[in-house]
Amino acid sequence: MQPVNPNIVATFAPPVMEARRWLRGVDFPPDRPLINVSQAAPVEPPPEGLRRAIAEAALERSDAHLYGPVLGNPDLREAVAAEFSTAYGGRVDPEQVAITQGCNQAFCAAISTLAKAGDEVILPVPWYFNHKMWLDMQGIKARPLACGQDMLPDPGEAGKLIGPRSRAIVLVTPNNPSGAEYPAELVAGFFELAQRHGLALILDETYRDFDSRTGAPHDLLTRQGWEETVIQLYSFSKAYRLTGHRVGALIASRDRMSEIEKFLDTVAISTSQLGQIGALWGMRNLRGWLAGEREEILARRAATVRAISGLPGWRLKTAGAYFAWVEHPFGLSSAKLAPRMVAEIGVLALPGTMFLPQDDPLGTGHFRIAFANVDAAGIAELAERLGSFVG
Amino acid sequence: MQPVNPNIVATFAPPVMEARRWLRGVDFPPDRPLINVSQAAPVEPPPEGLRRAIAEAALERSDAHLYGPVLGNPDLREAVAAEFSTAYGGRVDPEQVAITQGCNQAFCAAISTLAKAGDEVILPVPWYFNHKMWLDMQGIKARPLACGQDMLPDPGEAGKLIGPRSRAIVLVTPNNPSGAEYPAELVAGFFELAQRHGLALILDETYRDFDSRTGAPHDLLTRQGWEETVIQLYSFSKAYRLTGHRVGALIASRDRMSEIEKFLDTVAISTSQLGQIGALWGMRNLRGWLAGEREEILARRAATVRAISGLPGWRLKTAGAYFAWVEHPFGLSSAKLAPRMVAEIGVLALPGTMFLPQDDPLGTGHFRIAFANVDAAGIAELAERLGSFVG
Repeated sequence: MQPVNPNIVATFAPPVMEARRWLRGVDFPPDRPLINVSQAAPVEPPPEGLRRAIAEAALERSDAHLYGPVLGNPDLREAVAAEFSTAYGGRVDPEQVAITQGCNQAFCAAISTLAKAGDEVILPVPWYFNHKMWLDMQGIKARPLACGQDMLPDPGEAGKLIGPRSRAIVLVTPNNPSGAEYPAELVAGFFELAQRHGLALILDETYRDFDSRTGAPHDLLTRQGWEETVIQLYSFSKAYRLTGHRVGALIASRDRMSEIEKFLDTVAISTSQLGQIGALWGMRNLRGWLAGEREEILARRAATVRAISGLPGWRLKTAGAYFAWVEHPFGLSSAKLAPRMVAEIGVLALPGTMFLPQDDPLGTGHFRIAFANVDAAGIAELAERLGSFVG
Repeated sequence: MQPVNPNIVATFAPPVMEARRWLRGVDFPPDRPLINVSQAAPVEPPPEGLRRAIAEAALERSDAHLYGPVLGNPDLREAVAAEFSTAYGGRVDPEQVAITQGCNQAFCAAISTLAKAGDEVILPVPWYFNHKMWLDMQGIKARPLACGQDMLPDPGEAGKLIGPRSRAIVLVTPNNPSGAEYPAELVAGFFELAQRHGLALILDETYRDFDSRTGAPHDLLTRQGWEETVIQLYSFSKAYRLTGHRVGALIASRDRMSEIEKFLDTVAISTSQLGQIGALWGMRNLRGWLAGEREEILARRAATVRAISGLPGWRLKTAGAYFAWVEHPFGLSSAKLAPRMVAEIGVLALPGTMFLPQDDPLGTGHFRIAFANVDAAGIAELAERLGSFVG
């Protein structure tokens, strides 16, 4: 195969696909089925009402099968603008919202308007792997920003990484993979840092619907001129179980929207109409249902914290949204342990190495446990199996 | 808005969105409705059977709402491999097929595995604008390759543009915007050129289902080692009227698939499940219907050729698939004429300037007429209005 772009060769293979390969050839006996805590996604379909709304649109609406506007359907852009204006106590106009083919694409679009090959972006570690992969492919240098023991990044430390080629700081909150919920003052600190240096602050809030805190998680959208600095990302996949439809959103200034429109026209043309119709139906009809989902996930989080805390040698660092970030007691790398955990105890979890620069001790020493799809009994069973693992 | 990637700022705004803006504030009287020949897409929804198949999947299949494999659903990859193996008389394995969120994304993925900022790609002009936009955004230099009066590019001329940073040659056949169907020997000539210089040959066959020729349009897939050179692209949007679902395909070597998988995981995660289900249903059930669609479009092409040929001063250069490439008789640029045609004769066509480097006389002198959505009566009316236009 030639020629080849060295930047794409240099980045790593999709971690989730690699993890799926560990399952091959492994038998899971009926009395000990696989416990899959690798997935940052719902495994159940959306509620019947939403499925019915999509089906009816497929049958009856011609426009459900045809190209839509590049930046998304006006009704969905309006709904997102209204929701974010209310939830964050600020003002977001529909013209400041773009609908994307999933939140990964929103990130790619945002970065593409900000930086070119040779530029730099500050990425707290552990990072969300697809963020790192996009920067690698684009020839943009990720500057890793270490977090403290509480898995929170520090604006002061970030400041030390800023140089002439810096273009943006990326925050994921609630965090994937650590689950940490970044305090409003911390987010504000990063905003002020970014503003002072003329950088963009990309806030990926894919998991915002499962934040344990009530009220706005930060006050950035209430600040005058927020749109000069903030690019906020959202996903409909988690809240409404729409992962198979690929619908996300991006909030930014009107000026930046013209550049986002170029990217989306070129890569996407438009987002799936049925996905947009489903997302809008969800926003209008599933608010109460989603509140219940959140309660359930918060209960699972509490159960996970309790269960892991009782395990000798294991240590839970942080937990939130779908995830717990867990230190293991073994002298081996999590990258080596993870496939063995599949085979020996029937547990699939992603090793910390998938979220950090190679050989970073934080990666080798930790796992991401995505507990959201496991009920209370499953979490107890998970802890028992982890406790039985000899490493 | 700062910072900003100068490469994305430097590229142009989406032409189709710009053209839509010309319609604002223009009244089209009932006795003279708009004739829209700007769209390279069906305007009718897919047949009822396909809509029903999508609706049933939405209601009954859980997996229709959840992430699928990054490279696409195995059943659809198999169907594409079988179809291309049969239609081109060669051998394409399912592992050599990726499903993408539309054919634009297939192009972006292909280029991302081939070239980085500073590299070069040879692009016949007039080009498909989103191809040029992607190269611009990536900091990859497009080397424009002029076509002859027959709108065919010449491999010998292309050879003169090859340099140390060349990575690929892009052919679109049947061509958008010119409609030209590239002869098999011409495609073979480009293949041999690319092979000799270690370049990739990207063949975008979005409109292959409407080729006027029967049988394989080229023999590349029958050649030993084709996958070292060829990357073939396809779209389900046109054949099955699925533009709103975003489903395309890419055929390449297994080695390249590993790199394609990285790109798709990062930008897309996976393609819309309902779109893939619809595309597969179409391939399995709409072959006869599609043959009828092709006949109708070929009849419209013939009507367009006749109608434009009879117009004093106008000259039809080429026609095929959805498009005719037409020279106008006026001393003004098509970029200036196009919005005036909307207002004065109720005709929306894209000016040639949207498919060429700025100020190229080929662009200013031509229009792309996308006749596929206009029936015989409409084509007669179109010619009458063009004939009445005073320029």
